[in-house]
Formats: sequence, structure tokens, C-alpha cells
Amino acid sequence: MSEWEIVYRGWEPREQGVREALCTLGNGYLATRGAAPECDADDVHYPGTYLAGVYNRLGSEVAGRWVENESLVNAPNWLSLTFRVDDGPWLSPATAEVLDWEQKLDLSRGLLVRLARYRDGQGRVVRLVQRRFVDMAGPHLAGLDTTLTAENFSGRLEVRSALDGTVTNSGVARYRALPSRHLTPLRAAELDGETIELMVETNQSHVRIAMAARTRVFLRDQPVPAVRHVVTRDGYVAHLLVLHADEGESVTIEKLVATYTGRDTGISEPAAEARDRVRHIGGFDDLLPRHTLAWHHLWERCRVDLVDSEEVQRILNLHIFHLLQTTSQHVVDLDVGVPARGLHGEAYRGHVFWDEIFILPFLNLRMPEVSRSLLRYRHRRLPQARWAAKAAGYDGVMFPWQSGSDGREETQTLHLNPKSGRWLPDASHLQRHINLAVAYNVWQYWETTGDEQFLGFYGAELLLGMARFFASLATYDRTSDRYEIAGVMGPDEYHEGYPGAEQPGLRNNAYTNVMTAWLMCRALEVLDVLPEPYRSEVLDRMGLTREETDRWEVMSRRMKIVFHDDGIISQFEGYEDLAELDWEDYVARYGDIQRLDRILEAEGDSPDNYKLSKQADALMAAFLLSPRELTLVFRRLGYELTAEQARRTVEYYMARTSHGSTLSKLVHGWILARIDRRRSWQFFQEALRSDIDDVQGGTTSEGIHLGAMAGTVDMVQRCYSGIDPRGGVLFLDPDLPDELRGLQFDLRYRGRWLHLDIDHERARVEVRRDGAGPVKVGRRNQIVELGAGESFTFELS
Amino acid sequence: MSEWEIVYRGWEPREQGVREALCTLGNGYLATRGAAPECDADDVHYPGTYLAGVYNRLGSEVAGRWVENESLVNAPNWLSLTFRVDDGPWLSPATAEVLDWEQKLDLSRGLLVRLARYRDGQGRVVRLVQRRFVDMAGPHLAGLDTTLTAENFSGRLEVRSALDGTVTNSGVARYRALPSRHLTPLRAAELDGETIELMVETNQSHVRIAMAARTRVFLRDQPVPAVRHVVTRDGYVAHLLVLHADEGESVTIEKLVATYTGRDTGISEPAAEARDRVRHIGGFDDLLPRHTLAWHHLWERCRVDLVDSEEVQRILNLHIFHLLQTTSQHVVDLDVGVPARGLHGEAYRGHVFWDEIFILPFLNLRMPEVSRSLLRYRHRRLPQARWAAKAAGYDGVMFPWQSGSDGREETQTLHLNPKSGRWLPDASHLQRHINLAVAYNVWQYWETTGDEQFLGFYGAELLLGMARFFASLATYDRTSDRYEIAGVMGPDEYHEGYPGAEQPGLRNNAYTNVMTAWLMCRALEVLDVLPEPYRSEVLDRMGLTREETDRWEVMSRRMKIVFHDDGIISQFEGYEDLAELDWEDYVARYGDIQRLDRILEAEGDSPDNYKLSKQADALMAAFLLSPRELTLVFRRLGYELTAEQARRTVEYYMARTSHGSTLSKLVHGWILARIDRRRSWQFFQEALRSDIDDVQGGTTSEGIHLGAMAGTVDMVQRCYSGIDPRGGVLFLDPDLPDELRGLQFDLRYRGRWLHLDIDHERARVEVRRDGAGPVKVGRRNQIVELGAGESFTFELS
Repeated sequence: MSEWEIVYRGWEPREQGVREALCTLGNGYLATRGAAPECDADDVHYPGTYLAGVYNRLGSEVAGRWVENESLVNAPNWLSLTFRVDDGPWLSPATAEVLDWEQKLDLSRGLLVRLARYRDGQGRVVRLVQRRFVDMAGPHLAGLDTTLTAENFSGRLEVRSALDGTVTNSGVARYRALPSRHLTPLRAAELDGETIELMVETNQSHVRIAMAARTRVFLRDQPVPAVRHVVTRDGYVAHLLVLHADEGESVTIEKLVATYTGRDTGISEPAAEARDRVRHIGGFDDLLPRHTLAWHHLWERCRVDLVDSEEVQRILNLHIFHLLQTTSQHVVDLDVGVPARGLHGEAYRGHVFWDEIFILPFLNLRMPEVSRSLLRYRHRRLPQARWAAKAAGYDGVMFPWQSGSDGREETQTLHLNPKSGRWLPDASHLQRHINLAVAYNVWQYWETTGDEQFLGFYGAELLLGMARFFASLATYDRTSDRYEIAGVMGPDEYHEGYPGAEQPGLRNNAYTNVMTAWLMCRALEVLDVLPEPYRSEVLDRMGLTREETDRWEVMSRRMKIVFHDDGIISQFEGYEDLAELDWEDYVARYGDIQRLDRILEAEGDSPDNYKLSKQADALMAAFLLSPRELTLVFRRLGYELTAEQARRTVEYYMARTSHGSTLSKLVHGWILARIDRRRSWQFFQEALRSDIDDVQGGTTSEGIHLGAMAGTVDMVQRCYSGIDPRGGVLFLDPDLPDELRGLQFDLRYRGRWLHLDIDHERARVEVRRDGAGPVKVGRRNQIVELGAGESFTFELS
Repeated sequence: MSEWEIVYRGWEPREQGVREALCTLGNGYLATRGAAPECDADDVHYPGTYLAGVYNRLGSEVAGRWVENESLVNAPNWLSLTFRVDDGPWLSPATAEVLDWEQKLDLSRGLLVRLARYRDGQGRVVRLVQRRFVDMAGPHLAGLDTTLTAENFSGRLEVRSALDGTVTNSGVARYRALPSRHLTPLRAAELDGETIELMVETNQSHVRIAMAARTRVFLRDQPVPAVRHVVTRDGYVAHLLVLHADEGESVTIEKLVATYTGRDTGISEPAAEARDRVRHIGGFDDLLPRHTLAWHHLWERCRVDLVDSEEVQRILNLHIFHLLQTTSQHVVDLDVGVPARGLHGEAYRGHVFWDEIFILPFLNLRMPEVSRSLLRYRHRRLPQARWAAKAAGYDGVMFPWQSGSDGREETQTLHLNPKSGRWLPDASHLQRHINLAVAYNVWQYWETTGDEQFLGFYGAELLLGMARFFASLATYDRTSDRYEIAGVMGPDEYHEGYPGAEQPGLRNNAYTNVMTAWLMCRALEVLDVLPEPYRSEVLDRMGLTREETDRWEVMSRRMKIVFHDDGIISQFEGYEDLAELDWEDYVARYGDIQRLDRILEAEGDSPDNYKLSKQADALMAAFLLSPRELTLVFRRLGYELTAEQARRTVEYYMARTSHGSTLSKLVHGWILARIDRRRSWQFFQEALRSDIDDVQGGTTSEGIHLGAMAGTVDMVQRCYSGIDPRGGVLFLDPDLPDELRGLQFDLRYRGRWLHLDIDHERARVEVRRDGAGPVKVGRRNQIVELGAGESFTFELS
């Protein structure tokens, strides 16, 4: 199997959900699940996939309460292409014998090829070869090319090519009781003998979605006419083609689809655009080279080449492939954020959490224009974030833990424990650290690009607004002469509050407090580096006072971090007093204990009572900040953090983490890279296999885990190479695991493209010939300035 | 009268159209006419003004043919606030005696203040003071603050505060026979005791527009309750407030409105947003300081200070003010172009022509992010421009002469001569030079900003696509060994074709051919300067061949320019053979001969027969290109163009131009700046007064002339100062008219802010302290490199 292919052979119904998720095709605008078996849309409801940025509000009855939230909207299913012999059943694995089955995803050019052979009840064998793509050269097109061969009979073939807007968000079993119908049918009609069109509208946000599909038939590469009937019903339209097939003969059905929404730029009205577009396009094989070229260019920008690691390479390629399907260059003109599961599946209903913290650092170094657009998504939602802060009694900007279209808090207030069947109050919106993820990304983007315009118009306002928020959230404790933050949750969602407490929330979460101190430094720094007139403008607009910045300065030195008696950093104040869990007992009793929260609640207990974590919490700061920077933050705070103490802290929490999130192994692997390369590599391997092996046993079919995917790529890119853009210098400090002989990649830093070639002995950096001005590259205390076409080799030993 | 105020005193009904146009308020998103007298919405139809980027298609019956075009959509009228005493008529100049009237536009902070005193039929006098603004701190809000004083009576006052979506596009008399109803009513209701909401939808493009208005009453600065009734009908909702006024007492009515459309970013659904927004805002006097501050920042970036020229200064300030109302920073997130009349009036129905050529150069040097967005508007319409070229039998990219939402050609194919009453075929879509305007702007933006990302992703594709178009439009003539272009029109719309010809179109329009040669140079240059990987990517995407670029190289040297026998540049081939017009006779008979085309057609004659121009055509090349650059283009073409020959060409066409466009005087004044400073200043003065004096006698009330407004500012900024960003150097070469003692302004060049201080003896350039790297500034052969905080003075004598 090549590094550029994902191949599945043999029909495995139980595997199909995962396969389809991993074979999803998309282009940052439209995503569509891959390799669905032919099915009768009347019988089997095929889940659609998302249209970027098209959200809708759902009213749901949850545990007797009415809950509203906004979710990404499924695109109408344009894939629907079914066929049958004579009046037999529509052929699919459910209705026919599957003689052969293969699905092959070509990562290098975003093409999915499927081969199948079906034998129907009367022994007639039909062979199918199908190619499909979602155009990467532009956002709006997709193509499906199907060749059917009547292997051992002559007779009538019926092919049904549909656009189906009756899709629901019912791909996740536990959501099926909730309302899931987003789309109101508006029009379903034939446009001409070859073309059908469908228009639907989201039922609350009133975004129109229009599709036009042209279906043509070819015999020996020549277009042939076909008898056609049109089938329409509300939200559904199909062309029914009646063909004759001679034994051994092949007929090809080409389906091309254009999709537009009312939120697109450069259009008059989406249905008119979809029609026009389909009228102007050539054939499948005219579009494919443009699409392939677009992928070629993307890979030139985004590839990471490993030496002699074919399997890791293949999975990294898959991860980059999926990352680009959610966040390609087509998002630049869209107002979209980064949903936790990409555009691939319905888990979390398309909500935006903090996953961008694992995703933007990769994009910053490859396609900074995409990062910029994703950060602008946050900036555009500042009004909501300001109102949210104000409503909670704070100043500044408070981003929501979960959100959809307009940036309101969309976190559930109740959740279901499927183990106990109970609906439980949910305080996870108290994760104020979401602000810190946004701040971290703003700063990383700035350091990587030096984009003054972004910082001036958007970035500074975000950073300063969030600094203001934490300044109002923190309280001063006279006894300790420290600033404290109470009433929050860390990333470890197992701890919502103190044992038996009436109110949720924790005191002095280490991650939140460390990063708050860091944020205060950055807020002060941004006021230093921001050129005029941006600086005066942002100061004026925010009405920022000296008193405020003085307080930020003090907070950067006096945030409180709590330590256990033995010097280990406490995840939060009081953590040390919690009970130890009998891990062995739980493993023995339950096997898989990733979701200890559900197990404990079902037992009438609570994770609040124990020293345990869902995922990295105290350790997250060490994931975001380099060892050097973390040391500086602690030192500035007046705390000593020795390397030995840091190491013990890592071991302490690693022993108490159930890894209930795919992100957990990634973060632990990252932190271990400088402490224990062998264990780091093991964690990396596990994180790497999260989706391809569906390690959580069922969540991948609900949508891939975009944060973990991007994070593993970034682990190779930034962690093992020690890349750290800081103060106008691109620092690197490679330390590859033994299992990784070497790696090469290009990256974009401050407007120039650099080529890096790293192994265990040396790291070579070359500045591409183009682009203005020199660039500074450094390792530890050695900093060199490289002009265009120059290179330098750092000796690592 | 200050340089920052436009004041009108005394009620002059005939002047009101112009006054309202000039007092229009806007913020790049929403514009709304200023200082409308109170009127009863039932009786008098008050024209709304535009919402940026919201277009709709109109089907119109024109001279027996069905014509479709897309037009900007009027915003529902949120201004409507009417009042009466007891059951009397709603007070307005139409129903009451106007005792006093004053309207004052404060340019420095975008505030319009109106004073009026009305006496009704029973002698009761009501005094009104009204302040209004359209928020510049954000796109969505507007405010109206009205204080009414019962001067000589006590009694009941009724105030009606409405949102009126029944507006039509009927502000231009000659369009009134065409369908003008764009908006379908969806909802009109009271939200709460203070708030009403209106939702409408454009009837073809289906864009929802929602408004929510909160109306409060204050007595001696304290909020007071009022008896309220709600009046609704389709597309209209009002709060009717019943108040009691004691003699001499003042009551204040505060109305705040939020507007959202379905095309906004960061929203769920526009009505929900409008409601939320109104719920979160404070009072008029809370919003005003934010708005004022935003204007303060805009003026800091955009002001041009003249020494001792108060009246010119005032008009320039007015022009900058209006420019910023159509193209403020709020367009950055919108997909909008530059309509000829801004967002101010209904002439041309909001269509986009070539006016950006007069507008972007100013913005490039002040708010390049706005220019970028406006150029992206063109780039997003590349698919339409490609299809248009293909449909006309050409390769590459052909932008439309007039366009609306999706970039289709929207030029009328018939137009009405009001003088003859005849509908005539219209070939003005043959103005292929629209491409050259886009190309010029792309190049100017690039030279000014050095924005590689823009050039790589968008600019190069535009330039190369347009070069490809002109290469396919041109034909090679063996006899002359020259490339020719036939079948086009120049900017002089009086010449559609040759006398008596069956087909419209002209051969070898000098402007088109000169600028085509220039474009070929730029297309080749962009391939030189574009860094990798942009260069390879764009070459791949376009499939550009060596054969093509070779042809461009040849065309840059062999485009044909036709000269009269005496060496004057022919506007087009054959111009010399046309008849001379008896200008004196026409002036004697008609007085105003600006629209000679209409006069001649009404006489059964045609402007095609004569040596006359509506506006600068051959001379446009000298407007766009500096004398140096123009000489280079001619020299490369193998033509000699002496200074004397250029001067004679200028005089020749100036003697034959009727100035039927406000742009004509601007262009002529610009060209004369280096030839005859006195006449240049005269033309400048006339161009300057185009709108403030409504020199075309009626067109200003149909909307201000944005090109002429921006052009006059740019004439001071770039022409008299000789600013020319070229090859990474900011060249200047000031030559001020005698009437202009000196000028000072800041400009942004390649990421740095420079301060310029210019008079007749010297020009001082100072680089602001902030911003990275040095900048090159030059005059003629003297080039200096200035670091942050450094300055240099060029001696001009």
C-alpha cells in the first residue's frame, strides 16, 4: 500500500461507518461522505455531510427542558446514484450478493475510486467502477463517474440520479430523539433533459441552498441519449434513466453537481448560480485535471516527508488530507470556524470548541491566509463575546466553550449518561480557558507571519479584550499577595466542582492561571510592538487605562499557582485532597475506562471525588509553551519550577489520566518528547491511530477527530523539530525519536518559504530564492540571518 | 463657515434634493439620505438609500422589450419620524409654515443636525432640533435624536416612529415607469413596549433585511412613559406615541435602529441579530462618542491639509467624507464593488462601472485593506468574466461595462433620449477598456502595498487573464506589422461606431491600444516579480504557454496607434475624417451642450458624424500614466511622441469636448497640471464643484458622483504632488498650482506611514517611527532610503 492511498478490500458492513468517515471528500466548503454503497433513498437514510458555515438553530426537548442550540447543516445528498436490473430491487449490499468490493482513496489527488460486483437474486452480475471527487479548484462543484458492466446478461438497466434534500442530522444514534430536520424544501424540478435542480432553505437561519445536477450517459466514450423520467417529491428530485445493456458491455453515467448557498460571494441568487454553473462546465474528465492540480499545489505547500516511515507517512498524509478538506483555501471567503469533527460527521453537531489550538499552528506555517480567516471568525463574534462577559458580570471578552453561527454560548446545560440513562446538569461552559486558546492562536499567527495589519485591526483587540476579561475574573488575595481565579473548569472535564459542592467550578486551575499570566505578558507586549496608528486607535476604541495595564503587569507576576506538598503542580486548588481511585479495580471491572465519568456516575459516585483526569489539564501549559517559555512564566511569577519537579508533575498526572479524549495522548506525547522520547513515540503512535483504527470504538464513524489529526502532523512539524517562532526569529531545536530517521518539509515564515531537512545529526535550513529581505533562524543561542537562496546547517550533536 | 461643516439655512424646496444627497450619511454598509423634512409616509414617498452589496434583479419592459438587470436595493426607511399637534396634519414644509430652517453636516464626526420651526394652521409653533448619525464604529446601527418644543401652546403631541419597507426605487424621475419594487414584506410587528421590528426580503435574490427600532421619550433628560399604539401594515410598522407638551417645554424622542441582512457575517439570522443588538445598546449619547471616535480615526488616516485654502479644503473634506461613506473599513467583510453614485442615490440603479479607477488610488495610500476588498470583488467575479469572454468568442477575462451582484454584463441595450422621446440601441457594453481600469488598479495596489499574497492569489490571475483577453481580441495586420483592435468603444460614449455603419464599434481606439501595450508589459513583469510558489501555481492553473507570453511581448512593442497627418493622436482610426461641429452655433442654440448626443439625435443627426467627445478619451492614457511612463510605452511601440505633439493633442481634444461627464473636467485638469497650471486649477475647481453646485443641473439629487469626488482629492494627493509608486520607490515630483500654497498629508506606502509636507520650494518626507524596514523615496533621479523616524527634504527649485 502506498503512502498516498487508503485501500479497503472486501465488504465489511461493520467497518463501513469508519471507512466512510475516513473516505470523506471535501474542499473546505462542501463535504460529502465517501464510498456509500448504492442504496434506495426511500429505505435507507444516507447521512449527508456538512456545508461549511451554514448553521441552523434547533429546538430540542431534552429531559423535559427546551434547549436551543445551533448546528452545522447537512448538505443535501448529491451522491445518490442507484441502479437496478429490470424491475428488480435497487442493487446494494443489502439487496444483492457482494462478489467483490474495493474502495481506494487517492490522497494525492482527492479522488475516491470504488469497485464492486453484485449478483442479484436471478444470478445477474453487475460490475461497478465509480470515481468521485469534490472539486478543490473551486468550492462549488463535485463529480461522480460510474461505469456499470452487465457481466453475464443483456437487459434493461435503470439508473436513478437524485438530489436529496430530505436528509436529516441522524448520523449519531444518541441524537436521534432530538429534532434533526433542518431543511425546508423550496423547489425540486427538472431543468432540461439532462439537468435537475433542488433548492432548500434552512428552517431557522433561512439560508438557501441550491444544487443543480447534470447526468449524462456514455457508451464506448460517446454520449448517448437515454429515456428519462423525472421523479419529484418535497425536497427530492431524480432523473430516472432507462438504458439497455448488452452482455459484457459497459455504460458510463456521469453526474456533475454545482452547489451554492445564499451566503456565497459573487452571486445573484444561489439557484440561478447553480444552473449557470452546470451549464458552463465540461465533462468529468475536463474537471478532474483542474482538481488534481489544485491538490498538487496543496501538497507542495503542506507535505511533511519522513525518511523510511511509510506507515506513519501514510497516516500523516491522511491527516493532512482531512485537515485540508475542512480548512482549505476556500474558507478564506467564508465566515467559518473549526468544528471539532471537521465537516466529516455529526458528532457535537458541528459545534466549534477549542480544537483550533491544535490546528492553526500547522496552518500558520503553510497557509497563513487560512489561519487569518479562522481568527477573523472569532473577531467577528466579539460583540457576542462582550455581551457574554457582561452578562456574567465581567469586563472584556468571554468566548463560548461551544458555539455555532453567531458565537453565542451553545454548550449543553444537561447531558445524557448513556450508561445510567440519566440526564445530568452540565457545567462545562465554565471552561474559560477557551479564551486562552484564541489568545495563543492570535499570538502564534502574529509571531509566524508578522502580519501587522491583522494585529492592528483584529489581533490586538482580541488579546487586550481577553486580558481585560481575566483581569475582571481574577480576585486579589491579600493573605498570599496573589491573584486568584475561581469558578472555572480546566480541560479535564471530569472535574466540574468540589466534592458535594452546590455550585460547580474550581479554584485556581493551574492551566488557566499559568496561561493568564502568559496572556498578560502578551497583552503588554502587543502594546509595545503594535505600530501607529493601530496602537492609538485600539487604545482609544477600548478606552484602555494605565490603571488596567498596571494591573495586568502585576497579574503577570502574581497569579497564584498551587502546588502539592511535594512540589507537584496542583491541577487546581484542593486536588491534593481528593481520593485516589483504585484504577486496577476499575480496569478489571470495566476493561475500557476511557469514560470513567460515565462509569462513576452510573455507580452513584462522581469523578469530582477522585484524583483522575479525562485528559491533560495541568500539563496543557507545557504543551503550548516551550520549556524555555514556561520557565520564564514561572520565574516571573516568583515560583521555582525545576526540571525534576516538572518531570514529576508529568508522571503524576500521566498515572491518573484515562485519556477520554483523542487529544490527551497527543498532548502527553508532545510533553514527553523532551523527557522520554520512546514513550513520546508510543503516545504519538496511539494518537496517530485514533481515527484510522477508531480507537474509541465507534466515534470515528460519527466524524473524524480533526484536532488529533492536525496535532499529530504538528507534532512532527513543530514538536520533534523544536520549531518556535519567537521575537522575529524562527527557532528550531530538533530532537527526533529514534524511530524517525529524518524529515523534510517546507514552511512559510514571515512571507518567505524555507526548506528544512532534519535528521539526528544536523538540521539544514534553506531560504527559497524568492521573497524579500533576510530571515532570522536560530537554535538555542546561535542565530543566523539568511538571505534569499542561502542556507545554514545546525550541527545537533 | 468652517472647513468641517456644510450648512444650509432657509427652507428651499427646489434645493432640497441636492441638499439631501450631499447630507447623506453612511458607513460603507448602510446609507441613508440626510435632512429629510418630516413627512407623512402615506402621502409622500420618501426615497430610501442603499444597503451595500444587496442586489436584486428587476424585470423591466423597455420600449417593448423585456430587459433584466440587477440593481442595488434600497434599505427600508428607518428615518421616518413624524409628529403633529392634536389631530392636525403631520407637520412638514408641505403642511405648515416654515419659520426657520437650518441643516448642518458636521464632517469631522459624521453628525447631521437639523433645526426647524413650524407654525400650523392654528398658529401653534413647534420647534425641532434633530441629530442623526449612521454608526461608523460598526456597520449596523443608526441613531436619531429629536427634541420638540411647544413654543406657544400646551397640548397633545403625537409622534410616529416607523420602519418603512414599502420603499421603492423611484428617486430618479426617468426610471419611474420601470418596476421598482424590490422588497417583499415578511414581518412587521411590535417587539416590546419600546421596540418595533421589520423584516423584508428582496424579491429575486432573496436576501433578508431586518431592522429593529427602539424609541424612547425623555423629559428634562429623564425617560418618561408614553401612551403607545402600534400601527402595522404590509412592510410597515410604527409606534405612535401620544405625549402631552406644556408651553415652552421640550420633549426628546430617541430612536435607535439596528439593521442586519442575511449576507452578514457572524450572525445566525438577521431578525434575531437586530433584536439582540437593540437589546444590548445604550442610549444615543452612549453611541455617539464611539461613532465620533471612529470618524476621528478615519480623518487621521485620510485627511489632506491645504495651506490657506478654506473653501477648497471644505469641499475636499466633503468629498473624502462621502468617499468613506461608500468605502469605509466596513466593506472589508462585504462582497461589494464601487457603484458610480456611491450608496447615495438611485441614478444608474447602483451599477458598478469603471469609477474605481478614480477611487482606489486614493484608498491604496490610506486604507489599502479597503482597496484589497474592492479588488477581491472583481476577482470573485472571474468566472462570469471568463464566460463573457468565451461567449463573445475570446479567451481570458472580459469584465462587464456595467454590472451588479454576480458580475454579469448589465449594460442597457436600449436607452431613452428624453429630448426626442426615442428608445435607441445602446452599444456601450463595447467599452472593453473596463478591463484596463481593473488592471490599472491591480497594479497600483501592488506597487503601493507590495502585497505579495494579494498578487499571488488574486492580482496575477486578473492581470494575466486580461492580457490573454486582449491578445485574443487583437488581430495582426501584415501590411503595417501592427496589432489592431476593432469593434470597441472608448470612454467617449458619443462615438458608438462609424457614420452610417451597420455594426457599432471603432477601430484602434488610442486609449485602449496604448493601455493594452502597457498591460502586456505589466503581465510580463508580474511573471518576473511574483515569488514562488505563487508563480508556478498561477502558470499551472492558467495553462499559460511560452507562445502566449511571446505574443504579449510582441504586442507590447507593436500595438497600433493611429495619428492624424499633423501628428496628433487619433482618438480612433478614422476620427480625422469626421466633420467638424459648429460649436458656436450649438452653444447659441442650446446653451448647455453637455449632452450633445441627445441634442444631435433629436435633430435626426448623430454624434458619430462629428469630431466631438463626451469626455477625455485619447487623453485618458495621459491621466493614468505619468509623462515618463507614457513616453516609455510609446517609445517601446516605436512611435515618437514629442512634448510638443502631446501638448497639441491635448489642445486638440480639449477644443472638441463637451464634458458630458463630471469625470471629464477632472481628467483634463489632471493632464494640464504639467502643461498649464492655471487652466489645470480652473478645471480642478470646476470638477470640485460638480456636486456641491450640482453643475449638471439635477444629477446630484440622483446621487453624488463618487469618481469625481475621489478624483479631486486624488488630484491634490497624487497629481499636484507628482506621487508615483514605481518599482519599489515612492516617487514624488511636486508642482503646485499658484493658488495652492502648500499641503500636508500622511500616506501609507508598503506598510509604513509617511508624512509629506509640500510647498512651492520643497517637499519634506518623514517616515513615522513605527513599522519595519527602510523605505525608498525619490524625485526624478534622486533616490533616498529612509529608516523609521528619518526625514528628507527635496529642494524643488
